[in-house]
Amino acid sequence: MLSNDLHSRNKSSAWLSIDLGALAANYNLFKDQAKPGCAVAGVIKADGYGLGVDKVLATLENQDCAFYFVATLDEALHLRKLTQKPIAMFGGLYHGAEDYYIHDNIIPVLNSLADIKAWQEQTQNHDIPLPAIIHFDTGMNRLGLGQDETQSLLNDQDRLKGLKLEYFMSHFACADDVGSPMTQEQYERFKTATAAFPTIKKSLCNSAGTFRSSDYHFDLLRPGMALYGLNPTPEQDNPMRPVVKLETRILQIRNVKKGETVGYGAIHHFEKDTAVATVALGYADGFLRSLSGKGHLYYKDTACPIIGRVSMDLVTIDIGALNTPPQTGDIIEVLGPYQDADTLAKIAGTIGYEILTDLGRRYHRDYI
Amino acid sequence: MLSNDLHSRNKSSAWLSIDLGALAANYNLFKDQAKPGCAVAGVIKADGYGLGVDKVLATLENQDCAFYFVATLDEALHLRKLTQKPIAMFGGLYHGAEDYYIHDNIIPVLNSLADIKAWQEQTQNHDIPLPAIIHFDTGMNRLGLGQDETQSLLNDQDRLKGLKLEYFMSHFACADDVGSPMTQEQYERFKTATAAFPTIKKSLCNSAGTFRSSDYHFDLLRPGMALYGLNPTPEQDNPMRPVVKLETRILQIRNVKKGETVGYGAIHHFEKDTAVATVALGYADGFLRSLSGKGHLYYKDTACPIIGRVSMDLVTIDIGALNTPPQTGDIIEVLGPYQDADTLAKIAGTIGYEILTDLGRRYHRDYI
Repeated sequence: MLSNDLHSRNKSSAWLSIDLGALAANYNLFKDQAKPGCAVAGVIKADGYGLGVDKVLATLENQDCAFYFVATLDEALHLRKLTQKPIAMFGGLYHGAEDYYIHDNIIPVLNSLADIKAWQEQTQNHDIPLPAIIHFDTGMNRLGLGQDETQSLLNDQDRLKGLKLEYFMSHFACADDVGSPMTQEQYERFKTATAAFPTIKKSLCNSAGTFRSSDYHFDLLRPGMALYGLNPTPEQDNPMRPVVKLETRILQIRNVKKGETVGYGAIHHFEKDTAVATVALGYADGFLRSLSGKGHLYYKDTACPIIGRVSMDLVTIDIGALNTPPQTGDIIEVLGPYQDADTLAKIAGTIGYEILTDLGRRYHRDYI
Repeated sequence: MLSNDLHSRNKSSAWLSIDLGALAANYNLFKDQAKPGCAVAGVIKADGYGLGVDKVLATLENQDCAFYFVATLDEALHLRKLTQKPIAMFGGLYHGAEDYYIHDNIIPVLNSLADIKAWQEQTQNHDIPLPAIIHFDTGMNRLGLGQDETQSLLNDQDRLKGLKLEYFMSHFACADDVGSPMTQEQYERFKTATAAFPTIKKSLCNSAGTFRSSDYHFDLLRPGMALYGLNPTPEQDNPMRPVVKLETRILQIRNVKKGETVGYGAIHHFEKDTAVATVALGYADGFLRSLSGKGHLYYKDTACPIIGRVSMDLVTIDIGALNTPPQTGDIIEVLGPYQDADTLAKIAGTIGYEILTDLGRRYHRDYI
């Protein structure tokens, strides 16, 4: 009896449902968007933006995705156990760990002349051409060759000798902002930086950049957030299919009286008699504590205000306005048809990415 | 060569060190604080406040901890595989999952008359006394029997018949605030609610409550946060030993010019020429995005301001003021001697608990 699937669901406090079909459809939307000859990589860092990289990878493999990006070396090494496709790593070349890259055929995104020099030395030591992506910074000022380094490289192209250059890349800072002039400026800088290398393939676009102009597409798109259902074009309706649904359960319902308080710090005072539902969800599940006293959870189609502090395992909502009062054990929507991650993020003062990457480990996860 | 421990450390982007000796010392500080005859449970919900419940449990077992609390049923069932000691679960009795509790001998914290009734029915069905904790709400208004329900129970004590009552409990809302009158009020309410049951053991104190008055101790303390090094008495120096150290690596250093910007949205404008270090840490590691443009990371003993947006895998800091400039690959302290979780939390507008429970999965974890 204990092993029945439906019954097993009952033992969980909250349920995260991840629609892999929607993920596949989102990937294919990028293939449709890509200009002819432009491939589409999968950016699956941070455990596939919190959704579980093993399942995300398997889904993209089925769609013939042939290039993957992660952030850290540990992520790359994990992924290598699951696929033989090219895996590139944004974080660059970790000094003292070069043999891991070589052993598992991980492609470092080389972010500086020092990175390039160290990788070239490995090429010489091993007497084989090693794969690499060169990252030109065009305004992020985070990672990548700056203007001076770019100029030095252009003046002395022998620095690249022996490397198997997979791509030149750069990264947009403001592509989600349709009005930002910076996107076009970065494109121009990238074109200038790479003009001397017409035969090397190029990659510039993240999710948002893809939708801004096909001029930016070059040879490889690198969608991340939009694969997972976030909106790459916030100025208009989301073109992506929703991937995530998150539901929790009502643990207890109580009537409260005017003048009483709720939760830690007793910060919420009830101005009239009402009813409160305590639900199984908290900041330990990645439901940000900054949502204390802000925003809503949904009972069926009705928004119930979050009241008081979000605590580690519990959130309290005011259900006094509901016409049909819920019962203990009833389901409350956190993310789903009535509220997507972008919407909840805005209320929390953040972005949907953080909502996804924070999705907790205590949820019962269903992949559908 | 790839399996060498020290070398293996090189392949990680960041390092989390957890001092289990300090955890043990913190537990023993509660044993020292407890008034004679009062036991000390371990609250190890949320994966041991983010530090890894398996290691936390083993450490407390070695200190002869004999009672554990978790939040959810899944947590309780996981723990049952690791210990035969009593495990209680704050989240109450999940309807439709009662047989899991019975099968694994999990003690539900019964939060309502409905919970009590359902558990009593199980007692009758199985013809065995089932263990339970009864939770009287004394002001949190989150979980627990409210005043009306408490009165009903006192009027009809047969509702408890057949249950093996381990403890009566309640939970403080404001014990961390030394000036709050609510703590003493909750104590008085708890005494009143339980006065008719002198033979049943009682538990009221969380970490902070323990330090407020030994009157509140009763028969069982339930420390959580302070075990993990957070300060239970924020009005004075932290009596606990630090448990967590978090370090990351510099991925790249760059010189930037006055007028340039950094990061997504280009929100940070440099007012003079300086140098920026990009470090391997981001909100996907639980480093809250609300720290964008706020607070510091430490290079040796020097605070380096966080500038620009915290991104998924990267944080940028201004290192222009350092006398001895760091190198790529050098170590940056996130949490440690120069900045504890409580301090970082305050800057982020949250509490140390959220910093701990958000500690990411990408860190290389060392238990020392």
